[in-house]
Amino acid sequence: MRAGDLATPYPTVEFSTPVVEAARSLLGQNLAGLIVVDGSGRPSTILPGTQVLRLAVPAYCQDDPTLARVIDEPSADVFLRGLGERTVAESLPRGERRELPVVYPKATVLEVAAVMARTRSPLVAVAEPGGRLLGAITLDALLERMLAP
Amino acid sequence: MRAGDLATPYPTVEFSTPVVEAARSLLGQNLAGLIVVDGSGRPSTILPGTQVLRLAVPAYCQDDPTLARVIDEPSADVFLRGLGERTVAESLPRGERRELPVVYPKATVLEVAAVMARTRSPLVAVAEPGGRLLGAITLDALLERMLAP
Repeated sequence: MRAGDLATPYPTVEFSTPVVEAARSLLGQNLAGLIVVDGSGRPSTILPGTQVLRLAVPAYCQDDPTLARVIDEPSADVFLRGLGERTVAESLPRGERRELPVVYPKATVLEVAAVMARTRSPLVAVAEPGGRLLGAITLDALLERMLAP
Repeated sequence: MRAGDLATPYPTVEFSTPVVEAARSLLGQNLAGLIVVDGSGRPSTILPGTQVLRLAVPAYCQDDPTLARVIDEPSADVFLRGLGERTVAESLPRGERRELPVVYPKATVLEVAAVMARTRSPLVAVAEPGGRLLGAITLDALLERMLAP
């Protein structure tokens, strides 16, 4: 059993997708995270669910949560509605380079687990080197495989 | 709307719980992660799903995924079955101190989001300072609240 066999089709978003739409698809389709593909369909950025949330939280609140405490709810609502115009590209954190949770189709189950654990991403994309997205493996699917009797 | 209003009851595990049982409850109950409580019912460690997975992957495979590539599947299966005897306490990474995703009941929605984003945990516990676990808020529940029309 290799990553290529475990991978299933997974919806993607593009850099031009509005952030609010991305967040809604995360929720509506109960996704583990978002895969952002470039114009050629190659996985470019993979955002675990918690990092999609990050796009919607002002940076100063992330650095110091006590600041989030003084923002009463109506202001937060207004802020979230204001996000509607921004795209995924405009919202991604800058200068942050993390390992991309992508594996080759021939990766072993243990290899996928190691990548998932290290990148803290419940979603791993499967693609040939520099190639188009073939599918994705979620934490749930992997656990199911690993814990199978 | 405060964290105390959003929190819902959440199953917990103890340090003496076998790792395999913890992983199975994550899967079987479709949980976002595990909350480990101490003898007094206070949240002591919170493991996002990806970090529960980490408990089941040998450390050398996490540091260098290429090593996971050379382990063929039967060996990995054998390893996973071997985990059966280990408890959560015996499996937790040592010397690693991360911010615990716990908020007070009076925390604002934005505050919960900031903690979730910064700790990369799709699961935040709600408890009085040094007190018993009152409940938990998952990423899905939070997004639902934040994206409500």
